[in-house]
Amino acid sequence: MTQDELSLYIIKTLKENKKTEFENILEELQPYDMAKIYEDLPEKHKGRFLLFLKIDVLADLMEELDKKDQLGLLNILGIEKSGKVLDLMDNDDLALLLHELSPEKKDSLLSGMKAEESNAVQDIMKYPPETAGRIMTNRFVWIRSYFTVREAVDKFKVFAEFAESINYLYVIDEERKLVGVVSYRDLLLAEPEEHIRTIMYERIISVTVTTDQEVVAQIVGRYDFLAIPVVDENNILVGIVTVDDIIDIVIKEANEDIEKLSASGKSIDFETKTLVAAARRLPWLILLLFIGVISGRIISSFEDTLKQVVALAFFMPMIAGMTGNTGTQSLAVVVRGLISYDIDKGVITRLITRELGVGVTIGLTCSVLIAVIAYIWQGSLILGAVVGCSLFFTLIIGTLAGTIIPLILFRMKIDPAVASGPLITTLNDIFSLLTYFGIATMFLKYLQ
Amino acid sequence: MTQDELSLYIIKTLKENKKTEFENILEELQPYDMAKIYEDLPEKHKGRFLLFLKIDVLADLMEELDKKDQLGLLNILGIEKSGKVLDLMDNDDLALLLHELSPEKKDSLLSGMKAEESNAVQDIMKYPPETAGRIMTNRFVWIRSYFTVREAVDKFKVFAEFAESINYLYVIDEERKLVGVVSYRDLLLAEPEEHIRTIMYERIISVTVTTDQEVVAQIVGRYDFLAIPVVDENNILVGIVTVDDIIDIVIKEANEDIEKLSASGKSIDFETKTLVAAARRLPWLILLLFIGVISGRIISSFEDTLKQVVALAFFMPMIAGMTGNTGTQSLAVVVRGLISYDIDKGVITRLITRELGVGVTIGLTCSVLIAVIAYIWQGSLILGAVVGCSLFFTLIIGTLAGTIIPLILFRMKIDPAVASGPLITTLNDIFSLLTYFGIATMFLKYLQ
Repeated sequence: MTQDELSLYIIKTLKENKKTEFENILEELQPYDMAKIYEDLPEKHKGRFLLFLKIDVLADLMEELDKKDQLGLLNILGIEKSGKVLDLMDNDDLALLLHELSPEKKDSLLSGMKAEESNAVQDIMKYPPETAGRIMTNRFVWIRSYFTVREAVDKFKVFAEFAESINYLYVIDEERKLVGVVSYRDLLLAEPEEHIRTIMYERIISVTVTTDQEVVAQIVGRYDFLAIPVVDENNILVGIVTVDDIIDIVIKEANEDIEKLSASGKSIDFETKTLVAAARRLPWLILLLFIGVISGRIISSFEDTLKQVVALAFFMPMIAGMTGNTGTQSLAVVVRGLISYDIDKGVITRLITRELGVGVTIGLTCSVLIAVIAYIWQGSLILGAVVGCSLFFTLIIGTLAGTIIPLILFRMKIDPAVASGPLITTLNDIFSLLTYFGIATMFLKYLQ
Repeated sequence: MTQDELSLYIIKTLKENKKTEFENILEELQPYDMAKIYEDLPEKHKGRFLLFLKIDVLADLMEELDKKDQLGLLNILGIEKSGKVLDLMDNDDLALLLHELSPEKKDSLLSGMKAEESNAVQDIMKYPPETAGRIMTNRFVWIRSYFTVREAVDKFKVFAEFAESINYLYVIDEERKLVGVVSYRDLLLAEPEEHIRTIMYERIISVTVTTDQEVVAQIVGRYDFLAIPVVDENNILVGIVTVDDIIDIVIKEANEDIEKLSASGKSIDFETKTLVAAARRLPWLILLLFIGVISGRIISSFEDTLKQVVALAFFMPMIAGMTGNTGTQSLAVVVRGLISYDIDKGVITRLITRELGVGVTIGLTCSVLIAVIAYIWQGSLILGAVVGCSLFFTLIIGTLAGTIIPLILFRMKIDPAVASGPLITTLNDIFSLLTYFGIATMFLKYLQ
């Protein structure tokens, strides 16, 4: 059945009030598909759709919806049933839902929940956004090293529904400190009477609650883990981060880098409303507008030069554009490289030397090209030399600015992508105009 | 022990020829850490390091190294041992290693391998790059639906070493068609005498060998799978793609988008040599140089206007820059959005309408601002109006160009990121200069 046929069939079972049939179909659906069908359902059918779902399925459904639909769904369910659904949601997803809600709304949702679950999610929300503490779930199953494999599997069976998406059991000692980890695979391969301590993996790699989510993603990606344990400052196991969240983080961080590099403002997607999208983009554009005015003032300070050789204006956008472009190229390499490399002095020195080399190479090539073009076009050897010479220097400056500025920001623990996209465009505009008109003014008497 | 202490300790065991001690340490290491230590090892110790490793550990190590180190390692091992290591490597990693090697080198590596494994990897390499067929591994374990859980686990135990990183067993029928999937979790939760058919999940989501790797990543991300089965045109199971590869793909695809958006050329990282990096960047820069010359020609065709009102030059870089910038902002939103959304007519119409609205909003805001600034600065009301009016139109054009062009490319099945970064910059440069000087020339007599 296609998605559309499925939707129609589900609407039919809802209309005819056939709960068993409805449940049979829903049982085979992935939460993502269920959410797609729910979102596209006519409003009048949504109530019964939700009424027919079991609490645990509702929790799965919730985790796939966006915030607006989540709140709408809870509204339809009513306070009491909402509380039960929220109890079953993964902590990290719940924290994301509660984040940025009004205090009243948040309290009203929390009040319907079990004290234990409500406390757990509030604990998570105390950690700063984008840290391991914030994205972890506390739905892991712990065992003790003296358990046999059989005992471990028995405990796992009791808690399996609770810990749905987990692929390891975590071994803790009497102080709740993490001492080992056992995968489902290890359990299947072991004999029932073996002790956990003999099969567990002890050289555990974990992160702490305050580890940045980007670092968590890096570690999980490196080691091909399916989940990574999160410990507090005393090495006490407090949660785990699962690989499905890691994929979301990797996509989100990449999108953020692109947003920042293109100065397009925070989180604009296809659903963002017009005025919201405009408001998010405007700050950068206004900043760039003022920067444009600064460039204009620089040009105006060379008004005499420009008046005497109007042809200088023809090459102005090209020089500024090329400098901006080479800067952005270097910037993109550095910003993405910082994700994958361990940064030390050696790496940085090699990178800067390499980029200097690149700047000189592309500077030489492009400046010879443009000098020839300018000479043929304008018939002035000296104009060709001035334009070529300027481009040579501005390309080197642009390349180095695009390399060094993000590295400095990284060192100062400022995200190099956010500040340096527009910053580098600005600086490169100013550098290039100053260089170009500076050189042109020096040779003005030969240019006329 | 820190990484450095570990390295020193390992060198010590190598020097003193203590194989057992060496094996005890290595056993507890993750392949990634092992690879880091191997890479940093002085050349003279590498031979014995490799000599001390078992074949299966060598295969794990290989999978973490870059191509250069992989070839170096195989060289040290010699043909015979190399073959055994290659036999044990995951197909997809091996395909990546063999890709772009000279035919002689490739044949010499393949000749040392078992016929079965050598054929398997050659089969994979027949699929186009960046498809599911190319990134899948054939190391999955299949079972039959009439197996009991106990039988399934017994078969799994036999093949466990072979299928290391897999988290599901796949159920196939007598024609090798995929009919179900069972996770390790399902096996642990079931009773030994239950039949696979009663616990298997039948509404399988799979991809075909020719599915684009970006789509594979999207599906795995949506459904939070740990692996996804790959079938051929007859629904016969031929391999699986695992979540660890998905993370690598997501990072790679994001990097590619950034490279293309910033026109920085293919795969330049911190290790790329100077001349290679320069050569990869130059094509775009030279293209942009010629575009710059076209802009220059447009400006020169308005030379008379410019000569009479030199102040027009002051606002030229600002207008071109702003238009380029709003175009890039729209472009970034579209390129990344295409990854996460199912694209239909409704989505596209809404997006274009939204962006038109955004263009008008930012156009109004910025043009009023610049008109006031230009008036105050240059003391000419009409100049302010010309600059403001031009910016209004160019911002709308820039925003729409940044939205519509990537959508057209996407429809034509051209990657919207690659062609549209520089394309939009160009077009926007040309649009904005034509608009600006066109409007200025119309009002020339009032400007003087």
